[in-house]
Amino acid sequence: MGSTLRRDGFDATELSHDAFLGGRLVIAQPKVGYRAGVDPVLLAASVPARAGERVLDLGCGGGVAGLCLAARVPGLRLAGLEVQPVYANLARRNAKANDIALDVVTGDLSNMPDALRQQQFDHVIANPPYFDRRQSTAARDAGRERAMGEDLSLGDWVSAAARRVAQKGCVTFIQRAERLPDLMAAAAMHLGSLEVLPLIPRRGRAARLVLLRGRKGGRAGFRLHDGWLLHEGPEHVQGGEKYTDLTDQVLRNAAALSFPA
Amino acid sequence: MGSTLRRDGFDATELSHDAFLGGRLVIAQPKVGYRAGVDPVLLAASVPARAGERVLDLGCGGGVAGLCLAARVPGLRLAGLEVQPVYANLARRNAKANDIALDVVTGDLSNMPDALRQQQFDHVIANPPYFDRRQSTAARDAGRERAMGEDLSLGDWVSAAARRVAQKGCVTFIQRAERLPDLMAAAAMHLGSLEVLPLIPRRGRAARLVLLRGRKGGRAGFRLHDGWLLHEGPEHVQGGEKYTDLTDQVLRNAAALSFPA
Repeated sequence: MGSTLRRDGFDATELSHDAFLGGRLVIAQPKVGYRAGVDPVLLAASVPARAGERVLDLGCGGGVAGLCLAARVPGLRLAGLEVQPVYANLARRNAKANDIALDVVTGDLSNMPDALRQQQFDHVIANPPYFDRRQSTAARDAGRERAMGEDLSLGDWVSAAARRVAQKGCVTFIQRAERLPDLMAAAAMHLGSLEVLPLIPRRGRAARLVLLRGRKGGRAGFRLHDGWLLHEGPEHVQGGEKYTDLTDQVLRNAAALSFPA
Repeated sequence: MGSTLRRDGFDATELSHDAFLGGRLVIAQPKVGYRAGVDPVLLAASVPARAGERVLDLGCGGGVAGLCLAARVPGLRLAGLEVQPVYANLARRNAKANDIALDVVTGDLSNMPDALRQQQFDHVIANPPYFDRRQSTAARDAGRERAMGEDLSLGDWVSAAARRVAQKGCVTFIQRAERLPDLMAAAAMHLGSLEVLPLIPRRGRAARLVLLRGRKGGRAGFRLHDGWLLHEGPEHVQGGEKYTDLTDQVLRNAAALSFPA
């Protein structure tokens, strides 16, 4: 299988081509390795960006979050940072194939490349690795491990985002709910006007994911919103996911997933 | 009006007598000063205590939380700590009037009295002051100010609770949602198996209050539960509070407010 860290690209036979946002996007992804689920789609849907604004996707992987955002909000100036050349190249390829301008920089967020260090953004978004390497067994595929595991702390991710966002600009993260204490502690150090939107699998179930938003220099108090419900019904329906209508609009019709006012 | 800090008791004319839990309890409270609302009732309803267990109510005020808990769970060994003699005496009086055994110790949680320092509890509960004194104007009544304001940080409250709770014992706090970042940061330092249950005024509205629970020595991951809904309907109904059926059961029938499994 071998490490993807030292590779520049995937072979065509290694890739699948998957529809996102009801077919508005077709995204090439490795059949084996890190594959985007609904999480970057939900992240992108939650970003309150407007035409003309600058957006940075930290750790953009194959580019799904940024491209979903561009599909909903035209006229953005979109950049991505990705440490693994093989995924950075995939993001470039996906942007081109979907006719979306995405400036992908290959580099490490703990050693920000000059091309990004000289810029400020209206929005910084991130879907950081979900699993703490210290608590998980090593994944077999190094690319997947890098994308799923933990090279950097959430504090590193949040502080890099806070440095790149303009004053009054907005940082949005999606993360496993289990890691909210670490994420909130880091965000409280660097951002203000924090808001958390829990993503609830089904009514009465604990959040699997959370969206966290903060503003640089924001002074509003912390807000914990009522959860966004992902699925209808009490049980997982075999053979399919019955999303709520609002979630279905987000995933299949590129609707916004707005934080409550 | 004068400071209540140096007084030992209220005059009868200063007190009202209010029914809690559908009349299961009658609680004397000052007409002016800190008065218990539904918050200590919700706190008490959420505590998973069983007959025979030891419970400490930190900053017990007039004793509402502990007495509500005793009304739901018979056979507890109940203690309270209260810094203001006038409220400590009120709690003793309320316990006696309701025929509930409550050992009230007058003292400061940052300088724990020996009578409590020598004990460990299965549950420690607290409804710490909601307002950060640094951010609020001084209240006119010193007793109310002490109960509503901030003499100690939430970190002081959590660490005092963690010191008094037995290994594997349970700490439960109710607090304004706005202060969840501070509360979670403190709890993460001293407790494990943290869970947050947002209390949602109405569907789609941000949490006003949160219940936070942790276990001493707990090793489970953090959980953010789907919110507990307090009121039905989209709007505040003039002249009355239309609680959800489950909340009504808690407030008027001494039902448990259970964290989801």
